[in-house]
Amino acid sequence: MNPVTVPFEDMLRARMSSPCFPISRSVYLNDPRGGPQGVSGLIVAPEKVADVSFILARCNDAQIPVIPFGGGTGLVRGQLFGEPMRPVILSLERLNKIRGIYPSENVMSVEAGVTLADARREAERFDRTFPLSLASEGTAQVGGNLATNAGGVHVLRYGSARNLCLGIEAVLPNGKVMNGLSRLRKDNTGYDVKSLMIGSEGTLGIITAASLSLVSSSTNEGTAFFSVPSPKAAVALFVQTQFQIGDNIRAFELIHRQGLEFLKETVPQTRLPFSDCPDWTVLMDIGVPRSVDPQALLIDLYEDSQKADLVGNAIIARSQKERDQFWSVRENIPEANRRIGSVSSHDISVPLSAIPDFLERAQQKVAEFGDLRINCFGHIGDGNLHYNVFPAKGKSRKQYHDIRGSIRRAVYELVNEFGGSISAEHGIGRQKVAELERFGDATKLALMREIKNQIDPNGIMNPGALFSCAHDVNGSSE
Amino acid sequence: MNPVTVPFEDMLRARMSSPCFPISRSVYLNDPRGGPQGVSGLIVAPEKVADVSFILARCNDAQIPVIPFGGGTGLVRGQLFGEPMRPVILSLERLNKIRGIYPSENVMSVEAGVTLADARREAERFDRTFPLSLASEGTAQVGGNLATNAGGVHVLRYGSARNLCLGIEAVLPNGKVMNGLSRLRKDNTGYDVKSLMIGSEGTLGIITAASLSLVSSSTNEGTAFFSVPSPKAAVALFVQTQFQIGDNIRAFELIHRQGLEFLKETVPQTRLPFSDCPDWTVLMDIGVPRSVDPQALLIDLYEDSQKADLVGNAIIARSQKERDQFWSVRENIPEANRRIGSVSSHDISVPLSAIPDFLERAQQKVAEFGDLRINCFGHIGDGNLHYNVFPAKGKSRKQYHDIRGSIRRAVYELVNEFGGSISAEHGIGRQKVAELERFGDATKLALMREIKNQIDPNGIMNPGALFSCAHDVNGSSE
Repeated sequence: MNPVTVPFEDMLRARMSSPCFPISRSVYLNDPRGGPQGVSGLIVAPEKVADVSFILARCNDAQIPVIPFGGGTGLVRGQLFGEPMRPVILSLERLNKIRGIYPSENVMSVEAGVTLADARREAERFDRTFPLSLASEGTAQVGGNLATNAGGVHVLRYGSARNLCLGIEAVLPNGKVMNGLSRLRKDNTGYDVKSLMIGSEGTLGIITAASLSLVSSSTNEGTAFFSVPSPKAAVALFVQTQFQIGDNIRAFELIHRQGLEFLKETVPQTRLPFSDCPDWTVLMDIGVPRSVDPQALLIDLYEDSQKADLVGNAIIARSQKERDQFWSVRENIPEANRRIGSVSSHDISVPLSAIPDFLERAQQKVAEFGDLRINCFGHIGDGNLHYNVFPAKGKSRKQYHDIRGSIRRAVYELVNEFGGSISAEHGIGRQKVAELERFGDATKLALMREIKNQIDPNGIMNPGALFSCAHDVNGSSE
Repeated sequence: MNPVTVPFEDMLRARMSSPCFPISRSVYLNDPRGGPQGVSGLIVAPEKVADVSFILARCNDAQIPVIPFGGGTGLVRGQLFGEPMRPVILSLERLNKIRGIYPSENVMSVEAGVTLADARREAERFDRTFPLSLASEGTAQVGGNLATNAGGVHVLRYGSARNLCLGIEAVLPNGKVMNGLSRLRKDNTGYDVKSLMIGSEGTLGIITAASLSLVSSSTNEGTAFFSVPSPKAAVALFVQTQFQIGDNIRAFELIHRQGLEFLKETVPQTRLPFSDCPDWTVLMDIGVPRSVDPQALLIDLYEDSQKADLVGNAIIARSQKERDQFWSVRENIPEANRRIGSVSSHDISVPLSAIPDFLERAQQKVAEFGDLRINCFGHIGDGNLHYNVFPAKGKSRKQYHDIRGSIRRAVYELVNEFGGSISAEHGIGRQKVAELERFGDATKLALMREIKNQIDPNGIMNPGALFSCAHDVNGSSE
């Protein structure tokens, strides 16, 4: 591979106007998790698909690395180059048009650089909802959401980004444009190339636009906190909720006492649900037809679950304002974590019924490393937990520097033992490449590498992400 | 490519017991749509994944074509070889174990040869439903459903086979086994190889087992027929239903008067919903939480839709028996079509809002070919119509032999003009290869061919399906 040269830069500048070359700022290089900055490069923000095609074709000819850049909110360093070489950083920020909205079809076509929040707002103008919902939605872009198959709190009901996408327009490393911006919900004409590009973390090409699936916003929503005595009871409550409310569960989140205590400590304005901090709390959201009362369903659920000794207290939101308050508890936890400063964070999934055993075993393992606090929270309905390890009170993360890698290894080994995933929703990026190589199925990994080599023979697309790269300087801490 | 030789057959027979070599019967060669038989071959039905691996590796070495065979119910000749050469026909019928069921996780792992009906029955034993539902489910196998990304009546709510599959175990053409039988709902560890294999119609390898996503069977279900004055009203009724019932719509089917008249003529025991045959009828299914009354929701919907002049009559099922009767009307239409004998059938989709215009234009086009009857029915909620053309009363399909290809072309050209798909749910098989090459996006097709060549460099997997093959003897009529 080769770095960007002055003549190469001049050639690009001759084609596109100056606003397409943003001034290099830390925003393109910073790690949201506080790790080392990425390697700087020539930042290009084309405003036409034809220009994306031009850039990729030229980079391909010159074997110059291309680092796709969306909102920069990825947590596994997929957007941060690690080789000692000046790359093209291709930002999608100026490809930010809404191409069209078709309310009667529940479809919207947007360009990759539209932020998730703007996409959601546009849908709301037509009384429609785009169900992908993430804490970083004000900054994260739709293209990046698709490149990483983003998850969030509504995966349980609506699936990840991949499931919410009907079609994509994408540019391949050779500059060829794939026009697949379909509004169809069923289309069995050949390989699912769309799903292959989605979640490929910028290693196969650039998604420039997407048709997204919307839902009617007319649903009545209900939200409740339930305290539960144990993770086992949380899983049993989930099964009971599926029995009573079934298809209408939208989110089912687990919160550990540690998360509430971190909130008290670092975001004290947060209104906590219960006067005490229960060991485990479930936050659930349901959406029902507009003539049905969600609160009544939640009250029924509480009564039946209490008889079965699955729950302690409950509090059911009586207004939209209360719903927002409830959700702010959940949404402030990542910020509280940041303020405390984690030793090691793990975005993992295990089979739902294995969660209680996994948590018990993981706690024992982590305790072997000394005095640590664990904040485990996340999308338990999907089996997806954010299992994050923190310093003991009064200590700082730096004091644990030496055992960080060992904790990480121990957690992932246990996840693997339980048939789980070392990356449920954040992706591999550059941070988990070694773990993917260690725990991934060998046949699948070989197949991935064959596909990569076939589509991107010069290896220009996001080198170092998903696959190892000889000289990568990135660390490996989530 | 080479045919199966006697020494090759002896080598396989030496490894597996005689029940793994079913006697060649017409079931392996017949086209369910009545087209010419496939080319006969050595039929092998391994009962172990290791044997599937052995067969593929040996066929790969010897460059012998492998034709994967599930239930044989595919409608586009994907299971019928067309080259003048003796292939291995690899039937999955003996790989038919339920590997495990995890009711609290709503997950079931089954082998490829389990019939869809058996998979659904197994789930029901645990008060769970596997939502994939097709007319041919008694014969169709899960492996074939996945290989073709089967659709059916509940795609609207639960998606196609791809969306209902959490993981697969598959054997690649080189004999390598990919162990991806995950029970996880979220797993972002690399390319979505699972989605690539699903819907690849046996051209990339053999799916030997799958983890399937289940739902609780506790839902209250409601079913209704609504007569509507036009396709435009049907689309508006769908939008209204989404507004009122949203996430709880499970199926939304359109039936044309012609379908009801065919039923009267050929399946007279079918109980039709209305005393007259309305021009257009909608059949819908909803599923609501167990404490909610689905009939009340359907009555509300009828009243509001009537005020908006969207519907004429309605009939709402009052019992499970009536629900079954209602659905038997829909499910008998393909049989009635078979008895009448179609000139040309088209499994197509167009954007939802384009359906009324498409139907008007298509009717005009077909009328130009002379005296023909059109039976248009299908999954209008997904934009997926079965647009089938029949002889005038008293005439036979043979009399239209010469114009069949022209009708087909005219319909697909119109579909393409409307941004639709020439195969919504049946796949490409060997029958629509020419159309795929004509209407498919060139970049996507090139990418598909690259992937195919990379994973199956000797081209042994189902040659002639999805991609053209020099000597294919298959016709091209759906």
